[in-house]
Amino acid sequence: MESKTNERKLPQNLEEGGVFGVCGESDVRDHLYYGLYALQHRGQTSCGAVLSDNFKLSLVRGHGLVSEALEPNLAKLNGNMGIGHVRYGGKKDAEEYAQPLISNYLKGNICISIAGKITNSGQLKAELEDKGAIFQLSSDAEVLAHLIARARKNEASVENAVLKVMPHLKGAYAVLLMSSSKVLAFRDKDGLRPLCMGRKGGTYFFSSEDCAFAAVGAEFVRDLEPGELVMVEGSGVRGQVSDDENDSDRIKKKPHSFMDYAVNKAKTCIYEYIYFARPDSIIDGVSVYSVRVEAGKRLYKHAPAKADLVIGAPSAGLHYALGYAHESGIPYGDGLFRNYYLGRTQGRDENFKQNAMGIKLNVIKAAVAGKRIVLVDDSMIRGVTAKRIIALLRGGEAAEVHLRVACPRFVSVCPFSAGIDSNLKDKSVEEIRVEVGADSLAFLPARDLSLIGAGSGNCKKCFMW
Amino acid sequence: MESKTNERKLPQNLEEGGVFGVCGESDVRDHLYYGLYALQHRGQTSCGAVLSDNFKLSLVRGHGLVSEALEPNLAKLNGNMGIGHVRYGGKKDAEEYAQPLISNYLKGNICISIAGKITNSGQLKAELEDKGAIFQLSSDAEVLAHLIARARKNEASVENAVLKVMPHLKGAYAVLLMSSSKVLAFRDKDGLRPLCMGRKGGTYFFSSEDCAFAAVGAEFVRDLEPGELVMVEGSGVRGQVSDDENDSDRIKKKPHSFMDYAVNKAKTCIYEYIYFARPDSIIDGVSVYSVRVEAGKRLYKHAPAKADLVIGAPSAGLHYALGYAHESGIPYGDGLFRNYYLGRTQGRDENFKQNAMGIKLNVIKAAVAGKRIVLVDDSMIRGVTAKRIIALLRGGEAAEVHLRVACPRFVSVCPFSAGIDSNLKDKSVEEIRVEVGADSLAFLPARDLSLIGAGSGNCKKCFMW
Amino acid sequence: MESKTNERKLPQNLEEGGVFGVCGESDVRDHLYYGLYALQHRGQTSCGAVLSDNFKLSLVRGHGLVSEALEPNLAKLNGNMGIGHVRYGGKKDAEEYAQPLISNYLKGNICISIAGKITNSGQLKAELEDKGAIFQLSSDAEVLAHLIARARKNEASVENAVLKVMPHLKGAYAVLLMSSSKVLAFRDKDGLRPLCMGRKGGTYFFSSEDCAFAAVGAEFVRDLEPGELVMVEGSGVRGQVSDDENDSDRIKKKPHSFMDYAVNKAKTCIYEYIYFARPDSIIDGVSVYSVRVEAGKRLYKHAPAKADLVIGAPSAGLHYALGYAHESGIPYGDGLFRNYYLGRTQGRDENFKQNAMGIKLNVIKAAVAGKRIVLVDDSMIRGVTAKRIIALLRGGEAAEVHLRVACPRFVSVCPFSAGIDSNLKDKSVEEIRVEVGADSLAFLPARDLSLIGAGSGNCKKCFMW
Amino acid sequence: MESKTNERKLPQNLEEGGVFGVCGESDVRDHLYYGLYALQHRGQTSCGAVLSDNFKLSLVRGHGLVSEALEPNLAKLNGNMGIGHVRYGGKKDAEEYAQPLISNYLKGNICISIAGKITNSGQLKAELEDKGAIFQLSSDAEVLAHLIARARKNEASVENAVLKVMPHLKGAYAVLLMSSSKVLAFRDKDGLRPLCMGRKGGTYFFSSEDCAFAAVGAEFVRDLEPGELVMVEGSGVRGQVSDDENDSDRIKKKPHSFMDYAVNKAKTCIYEYIYFARPDSIIDGVSVYSVRVEAGKRLYKHAPAKADLVIGAPSAGLHYALGYAHESGIPYGDGLFRNYYLGRTQGRDENFKQNAMGIKLNVIKAAVAGKRIVLVDDSMIRGVTAKRIIALLRGGEAAEVHLRVACPRFVSVCPFSAGIDSNLKDKSVEEIRVEVGADSLAFLPARDLSLIGAGSGNCKKCFMW
Repeated sequence: MESKTNERKLPQNLEEGGVFGVCGESDVRDHLYYGLYALQHRGQTSCGAVLSDNFKLSLVRGHGLVSEALEPNLAKLNGNMGIGHVRYGGKKDAEEYAQPLISNYLKGNICISIAGKITNSGQLKAELEDKGAIFQLSSDAEVLAHLIARARKNEASVENAVLKVMPHLKGAYAVLLMSSSKVLAFRDKDGLRPLCMGRKGGTYFFSSEDCAFAAVGAEFVRDLEPGELVMVEGSGVRGQVSDDENDSDRIKKKPHSFMDYAVNKAKTCIYEYIYFARPDSIIDGVSVYSVRVEAGKRLYKHAPAKADLVIGAPSAGLHYALGYAHESGIPYGDGLFRNYYLGRTQGRDENFKQNAMGIKLNVIKAAVAGKRIVLVDDSMIRGVTAKRIIALLRGGEAAEVHLRVACPRFVSVCPFSAGIDSNLKDKSVEEIRVEVGADSLAFLPARDLSLIGAGSGNCKKCFMW
Repeated sequence: MESKTNERKLPQNLEEGGVFGVCGESDVRDHLYYGLYALQHRGQTSCGAVLSDNFKLSLVRGHGLVSEALEPNLAKLNGNMGIGHVRYGGKKDAEEYAQPLISNYLKGNICISIAGKITNSGQLKAELEDKGAIFQLSSDAEVLAHLIARARKNEASVENAVLKVMPHLKGAYAVLLMSSSKVLAFRDKDGLRPLCMGRKGGTYFFSSEDCAFAAVGAEFVRDLEPGELVMVEGSGVRGQVSDDENDSDRIKKKPHSFMDYAVNKAKTCIYEYIYFARPDSIIDGVSVYSVRVEAGKRLYKHAPAKADLVIGAPSAGLHYALGYAHESGIPYGDGLFRNYYLGRTQGRDENFKQNAMGIKLNVIKAAVAGKRIVLVDDSMIRGVTAKRIIALLRGGEAAEVHLRVACPRFVSVCPFSAGIDSNLKDKSVEEIRVEVGADSLAFLPARDLSLIGAGSGNCKKCFMW
Repeated sequence: MESKTNERKLPQNLEEGGVFGVCGESDVRDHLYYGLYALQHRGQTSCGAVLSDNFKLSLVRGHGLVSEALEPNLAKLNGNMGIGHVRYGGKKDAEEYAQPLISNYLKGNICISIAGKITNSGQLKAELEDKGAIFQLSSDAEVLAHLIARARKNEASVENAVLKVMPHLKGAYAVLLMSSSKVLAFRDKDGLRPLCMGRKGGTYFFSSEDCAFAAVGAEFVRDLEPGELVMVEGSGVRGQVSDDENDSDRIKKKPHSFMDYAVNKAKTCIYEYIYFARPDSIIDGVSVYSVRVEAGKRLYKHAPAKADLVIGAPSAGLHYALGYAHESGIPYGDGLFRNYYLGRTQGRDENFKQNAMGIKLNVIKAAVAGKRIVLVDDSMIRGVTAKRIIALLRGGEAAEVHLRVACPRFVSVCPFSAGIDSNLKDKSVEEIRVEVGADSLAFLPARDLSLIGAGSGNCKKCFMW
Repeated sequence: MESKTNERKLPQNLEEGGVFGVCGESDVRDHLYYGLYALQHRGQTSCGAVLSDNFKLSLVRGHGLVSEALEPNLAKLNGNMGIGHVRYGGKKDAEEYAQPLISNYLKGNICISIAGKITNSGQLKAELEDKGAIFQLSSDAEVLAHLIARARKNEASVENAVLKVMPHLKGAYAVLLMSSSKVLAFRDKDGLRPLCMGRKGGTYFFSSEDCAFAAVGAEFVRDLEPGELVMVEGSGVRGQVSDDENDSDRIKKKPHSFMDYAVNKAKTCIYEYIYFARPDSIIDGVSVYSVRVEAGKRLYKHAPAKADLVIGAPSAGLHYALGYAHESGIPYGDGLFRNYYLGRTQGRDENFKQNAMGIKLNVIKAAVAGKRIVLVDDSMIRGVTAKRIIALLRGGEAAEVHLRVACPRFVSVCPFSAGIDSNLKDKSVEEIRVEVGADSLAFLPARDLSLIGAGSGNCKKCFMW
């Protein structure tokens, strides 16, 4: 049964999401499944996968985790190409907005999955409606499908149509697109959202993060360049780069054309390293794990604390805390038990969910009683979690709690709609310290972050006025 | 969870389906529910309803019966306007193709429900795709939404846009359409599919059949004219008639304009009277019940039989059998028990379903043993059901079984895609008699059918070479 | 998920219910399924089936119709013996009280299905509890399992144990019992509830009604005698009769022993003929259909009416109405349309369900307007349905409505807990006529009922002071 | 829908499971929910809770996690007393065997939850069957209900009946029992399974572990003594101790009677500390966390390794690894990413599940490449997990992998049916090292384990010949 409320506005910002695609010579169903599974950290609200055997498309979409929403229906399907999606978003409408979106157009079917956000989709949609278009979902994917279908009228191929459309798209996104015989992948022209390519024999893979290649036994080939379009057809692969000036002839270029863009280094969103990505991923050449450990080390140098134990705020604070511990010589420890058996709590009211949040974490008194604790967290948006953990540690009779945050304070709203909007922007550090109840508080300076990995080129607009 | 296979072709012919709409001053949710409930005989595969409170739309759609698919989600919604749909169609894709279809377009939302079939929708779709349109469903409703959205660019109102579109639509259909503040109803220009209007105080209703008005306590107002468009806005109602020549100015006309079309009497599909409609409905001024009883009487006159008992083939043969019995003086009786507790048998293979069909009907031996039986059925498409029932009666030791069919033989495929396609077209009556195992067999002549009710004007193309 | 409220009281009276069992040489799964399917009219609340392949038992139980609750899980199972059950009862606890009940006891497994009611089960349960027994369900089946397990300690076989227990059971019931290698069937000592035996080659069947044999292709063998126990083991069958005096040696008797009981003719519950059973069943030698037609004829002789049309109250009034029409010469007709697409309405409140009841029946105005109608119903417990139908007929402009009820007035509560308890016991016929709104009203006299079929011996306590 | 296969044998060993109970003056529903939630690590297969308001019992049971199986039905219930259960066991039959078990007996209702195993339940069941008892589940709880119901015949209270039964029970178990007005808790006479008591105002709690008290805001009172029975009635609490000799008069004793048993110190199962319990629990006076850290320290002293990084096998190896790191001065690190978004994989075959296991863990190459790793695990039953992790680390280019196991080798099968049965018992350490692919391998000696916490008195039969 399906139920929706269809209001005339774009849905709430979609934050991250992840995409995975595969094009090979034999059945790729399980590859698609495991690849999405490995990207599950990028979205747990809904997911979907579409398979093509060159004759027909088979779609499975659903609410919830990959293992629950795609099973067992995916198991019945087959295909030598496919793309899929995991999505984070409001519960409402989840299944309907689940991607991939399949559309018919003049050349058959077109399937689209987007990770990230096209920031001018509202305007593009209004322009399309003025031309008589109808929308059933109001999603970025549907806007994109319309644009490509219209461009295709005057272009000789779907990749040419996409190259025509790309210059009109703003935002931070990674897109996978499947037509009857091709899989296309393209990345926003600043390379804000990650997208990379892998290979296993004659089968090619695209993924938001390379950690998913391990799940399918593929090897990492390379990251896509900013603004690049790569197309795989059958067992071959052709790459193209799009920009604002002259796309139309680029389609004839071979992969070596990517060299032209070496100057346009990816401005990968820094928050991918800080929080979104998996620690075992390497994005645009930089290890997420290493960025986190190094940030922890620099955090100690910037703001040392006399303490008996360093612990990480569960679970994203772990690697920062290890860096802090290694640099300081203070033992790394564990003072909090996290209950992983949360399941879903949808049947109850907000008050209940608040409590559920409260009980998912317990202090291990035997570990922290009488100790001076350094608590390291990855970032601080509202301070609610830090406040709760500090209270827990004090309940466990910790002698002192020094909070260290491994990234700078957020001072601006993300212009690419990643959903980051801190409500602490107008408070002083001391005010925040008092609010969360720490004995001391320090943030990693923005300049330290720039020294880490390829940090100088990353988009850090949320940390900048 | 959702699963579909999206092949590039229009789905199988949708046969009937039913629509119900309401526009009033207070909450109409229950009206919508009961109205659809009363039209359930026109489609049991899927159904849907959309409510509007002038601010937002709420949609509930699902697979199965109204009582199962719309409950309990509809119970949570409210609105002063709404349209709904019941649909018969292949199991596959049922939920996805469930109507109403909601689309966004330049003026907000537009919701569409269609009973019947737009026969040139494939061609219209191809033309739209050539102009760059995308399709997510390939349904008639989506084609219609595209056409109206495009027409709306140059028209001052949605009703004007519809009037522009109507001349391009071929087929046999009844359409309900809801925009943010209006409910529109229109009927194919030959009046092949039924559509009528009801009223209860300031609340107006549209329905495929007037039997649904009893379920909501409304009174019948009138049938829509062939090619007529009626619009209700708030508590008012305005009627318009569309034709091929000059629609644009008709929108200014008042309801009296319908007189222009008195010559265009509705060519209501004869099979509505024979099978599709409920016996308690009156369609285009003619009682379905009376047509059936009268057909039974004429059937006796045309093909009398010496017999002890007249029985109707369950369940559509009942009223024909009563007419045959009354005219002949042979007692009407009951010789078959029908098991109504069938539920769904979806979990089993075709062989099982065949058996399930077989056990849903039993002979009452005490009623038929030693008797000469006249078995009256409404029509014969493949002869399978008649053959099975005759075998049952012989198993119950009936002395003779004389089969009488209350409509003519099908000799052509329905050009309006109602799904009627008999495989007996090339056989003689004697060949069919032998095949079904009857002692005698007769069909009602087409000329008799023309003498019944308003029969002379009805579409009877399936009975004509 | 399971949820129950377990109060310390026996559940509400279970009314009818039906049992079906089979013991053969090959897989009997489909037999069991179709047999229960054919008995569905005896209970739609829950159902269950247990299959044995002599090594292990497989149980499927569930809420709702056989086709929904047993599918698709039953389809995966196999066995050469099985018993099943359909049950009518309160919605609450339905799944839990679904039969068959499986218990372990000292000799392995024992499975029990009961149609009807053991009226002293409350007392038997209290006695068992005093001896230290525990109960998980408080059902008659569980009480019976306890008694048999205890008796089995001192008896050489399960059939001997049952024979020991039978004299202690009061009420109106038909029981099927399956142990590891046998199927047993027994019937209350007055033969109040029906139970019969069928055969198809070496496979034996037991059923509440013989109509189920048609569904499995078996032929009727005979009804069980009052107080008789029949056991089937492998492909053989042994019959035993139990009474209060000396059961212990009866087990050695052969089937011919049933002659002893020819004097104890079954006092079959008259309401089986009037309402519970299917018209195509023959119970204890008497056709249900014939009883109903004959009752209708006698009803006309007792209470003739001048009228234009005889109609039956849906759906149990049909055959009585045919009898009334045939005897009177007044044409039988149809004036009411019944909507069979009800589905479940569990999601809504009582008010809603009332309305749902209201809309499931419509008048066919074309059939009844201006006519004098005889409305024939099978019985009248509260008069609510009759009142509603008469109002419908008057809404359809019937000139007169004469209500004829084809059984006597209920004057006592059924002592066998069949759930019949009329609230009209203290009213005069004229008071009832006014209440239901009929122009005239008559009931069939009890003496007429006694003249029908084997009526003189039937239990008619509900009609007697 | 329900489906089961009922074979005549006791179900597979149930391993752990957890119990939680509460008896107070106001509604305790949420307490019960959160308490079970906190014990979820002890069983995720099924769970259940029963609430009593002194008038009626309300039961919710289901398959899966507390948050999924008890929601939303528990939210509708209320009561001032309740007991609940989480269970680990085979998927099959899960819902049916979900506890608590509710039975009727001569004094009303009795509800039972058992964590652990009554090892002689098979024999007790056979004895009961010989006395004529029937069993519907074959669970320990049902056996216990039978014994108590029978004992209650001759005893003045349910607690007296329990005291009569306790001497006949063998095994390692913690039981909660609720009658109409009392909650009882009792523990096996060796104190093998943990059970403790908490308090919040006039509300008393029982729990398998004290970590659950934090979830409900209660304070820990004390562990139950081996063989002790504690009863709470209304807002009072009475404690009793049972042993083999003379229980009958103990019921009159007050809580001070526990002093008699100071000599019988609990022989708490050592595997509770090693694996079963949560690290933030304190069982029988000993911190689980501290045992694990101390074991890690001793493990280093016993088997030092030259290495660059210490990592724990996810997730139970964490605290041992911290101890090893702290003692050795080798930095603690993280080299493995665990995917927590597993959900259920029930729809696929075993091969698929194997793969799912394989992809839930990834190596973080940036952390381990070129490093000498000490991998610390809690215990080794089959060696499969260790082998897989070592292969992962080698895939991540670790230079060396030294495996350290923080408990001794298993040499015997647990006589209390906790499910521990290693298949490595007959292999040498060197053979195991080769099999798992480590560069070196060492186990913690049993004597070291005895020196930790209250280790000398713990049951360590699985480590002893």
